[in-house]
Amino acid sequence: MNRIAVDAMGSDLGPEVMVAGAASCSIERADIHTTLVGDLDAMRRALDARPHNSSRLRLVSCEGFISQDDDPRSVRERPHCSVCTAASLVAQGEADALVSAGNTGALILAASLHLPRIEGIRRAALAAVHPTERRHGPKRDPFALILDVGATSGADAEALRGFAAMGVAYSSIVSEIEAPRVALLSNGSEPQKGTPEIVQAHQLLAQGPLNFAGNVEGLDIPRGTVDVVVCDGFLGNVVLKMLEGVGDSLTHMARQAAARRLEWRIGMQLLGDGLKQLRRMTDWKAYGGAPLLGLEGVVIKAHGRSEGRAVRNAIKVAAKNVRGDLIGRISEQIARA
Amino acid sequence: MNRIAVDAMGSDLGPEVMVAGAASCSIERADIHTTLVGDLDAMRRALDARPHNSSRLRLVSCEGFISQDDDPRSVRERPHCSVCTAASLVAQGEADALVSAGNTGALILAASLHLPRIEGIRRAALAAVHPTERRHGPKRDPFALILDVGATSGADAEALRGFAAMGVAYSSIVSEIEAPRVALLSNGSEPQKGTPEIVQAHQLLAQGPLNFAGNVEGLDIPRGTVDVVVCDGFLGNVVLKMLEGVGDSLTHMARQAAARRLEWRIGMQLLGDGLKQLRRMTDWKAYGGAPLLGLEGVVIKAHGRSEGRAVRNAIKVAAKNVRGDLIGRISEQIARA
Repeated sequence: MNRIAVDAMGSDLGPEVMVAGAASCSIERADIHTTLVGDLDAMRRALDARPHNSSRLRLVSCEGFISQDDDPRSVRERPHCSVCTAASLVAQGEADALVSAGNTGALILAASLHLPRIEGIRRAALAAVHPTERRHGPKRDPFALILDVGATSGADAEALRGFAAMGVAYSSIVSEIEAPRVALLSNGSEPQKGTPEIVQAHQLLAQGPLNFAGNVEGLDIPRGTVDVVVCDGFLGNVVLKMLEGVGDSLTHMARQAAARRLEWRIGMQLLGDGLKQLRRMTDWKAYGGAPLLGLEGVVIKAHGRSEGRAVRNAIKVAAKNVRGDLIGRISEQIARA
Repeated sequence: MNRIAVDAMGSDLGPEVMVAGAASCSIERADIHTTLVGDLDAMRRALDARPHNSSRLRLVSCEGFISQDDDPRSVRERPHCSVCTAASLVAQGEADALVSAGNTGALILAASLHLPRIEGIRRAALAAVHPTERRHGPKRDPFALILDVGATSGADAEALRGFAAMGVAYSSIVSEIEAPRVALLSNGSEPQKGTPEIVQAHQLLAQGPLNFAGNVEGLDIPRGTVDVVVCDGFLGNVVLKMLEGVGDSLTHMARQAAARRLEWRIGMQLLGDGLKQLRRMTDWKAYGGAPLLGLEGVVIKAHGRSEGRAVRNAIKVAAKNVRGDLIGRISEQIARA
């Protein structure tokens, strides 16, 4: 049984979507037990409104929550808020994983305060999947992993090596790739290209034992040349947000163009579903969430606007990582290095 | 009369396209005089094959050229190669601007060796235009400027402020915007977000006199929130190459999707021209070239695969910057700061 603690409160769309995701999971999956942390009345109301299996659900009360607009550091003063309570359930061994769609900074800080870092890991990293042209692994996943996308800013060579090991462990579980190809994001493929930290990390990674593909450049991100792309949190954050914007901007430009000619309008209409599929594929939010890696517990950040289906996916991804022993695999990769 | 020195040799497509661009410019524009630097026989053959106005063209011979695969540093040992000869024409006052489609590193180094830095400018920067959803200035240009995209890597706060001043000067000429909005690329809009260099540059720029819009994030790049985006050369290079790749990857994914259903195929066919227009709009190479800013001379890098039309555009952009007194405007922006 995989036990998942869910912060039911932080989502932009309110507790209903979090409860909806957990409820649908409770019907579908006998191997997942979800603990919803939040306002009891709100959670009960949401649960009563939809089919669910109550033997696979538990409700835990807390004191308020950190909103998207709050300063993440306020978790320090509010140890009983929803995300802190959910994190403490994992720390106390009452749950194996934590899922939240709330304030990202608050989640990172709450998790870091409650869960120890895995031995040998210098920095935790937030990873994200992004859509790629090339498909990955036996399931032919249309996405690859990039980390760090903003848990911290700046990273020395040792931290970058840690990111590589963690990304490989996660990718091997989620995309079921035996030895994921991992690369450093730089401004050229040659080993001497990039910041001093990247050049040094390149030397460390070239010594093995990971399946290290060297440096990749910006255009390798949409292409999906490798399974795991490693960079510091500042660069990763800029890049991820840019990917998020490109899909929206292209759709907008296409619509503007189509408005000018009848055959383009008809063409766009015929493409209707195809465009939606493409939009979904280029929408990294659809892939169930971003893992925070490096702590002694599985932590998944679902997007703040996740609908019930996305929340259910995030819970499933969390469970898959518990089953796959994410923490053990990261320790193993670090020990081998 | 604007006098443009063109490195006729470095292009991936050979001297023919460079000569073709200059030839077509010579017919169209009485105010531009072009000096083509390269192999005399090859240039004469290419010129004889097409209409041109020989009173607006001059051929200058040189000794060989730096290819795309050569180490850029080889310009030091080859002072008479095409790009060095063209740069020295500008240094000696025989030309006002330099255009090359050759090895970028070699162009930057050759220009830096021959042309002094503008007073008050700490580092030169390579700028690029990238397509944006929002349009800019009175001409409604569908692109914005980003710099540095790889002249150097790393930049302190003073250098970033210099980039802002140079970008504003260039944008005010090319897009004819009176006071271009300029922003720092960071991982959040708050003044304290980003690397220490960015935080400090934010403080400097906030004191005026530029039209400083604060920090922008990755998604503001495709949106085109501001006219000029400033970052260090490492980040800019990664971001620009990613933009280059996204268009290709999306087109590829769309074609794959279309192959699966008849109505999608028909839709794609009806969209034919529209897609081509969109591709062109998302193809930053189409906008005539990337300026190298900060030196006492106008320097334009045309893309290595520029066709004759793109070369002609690069020559025109160079001429426009000579007319607009780019160097004077940069000095002025720096003096005001």
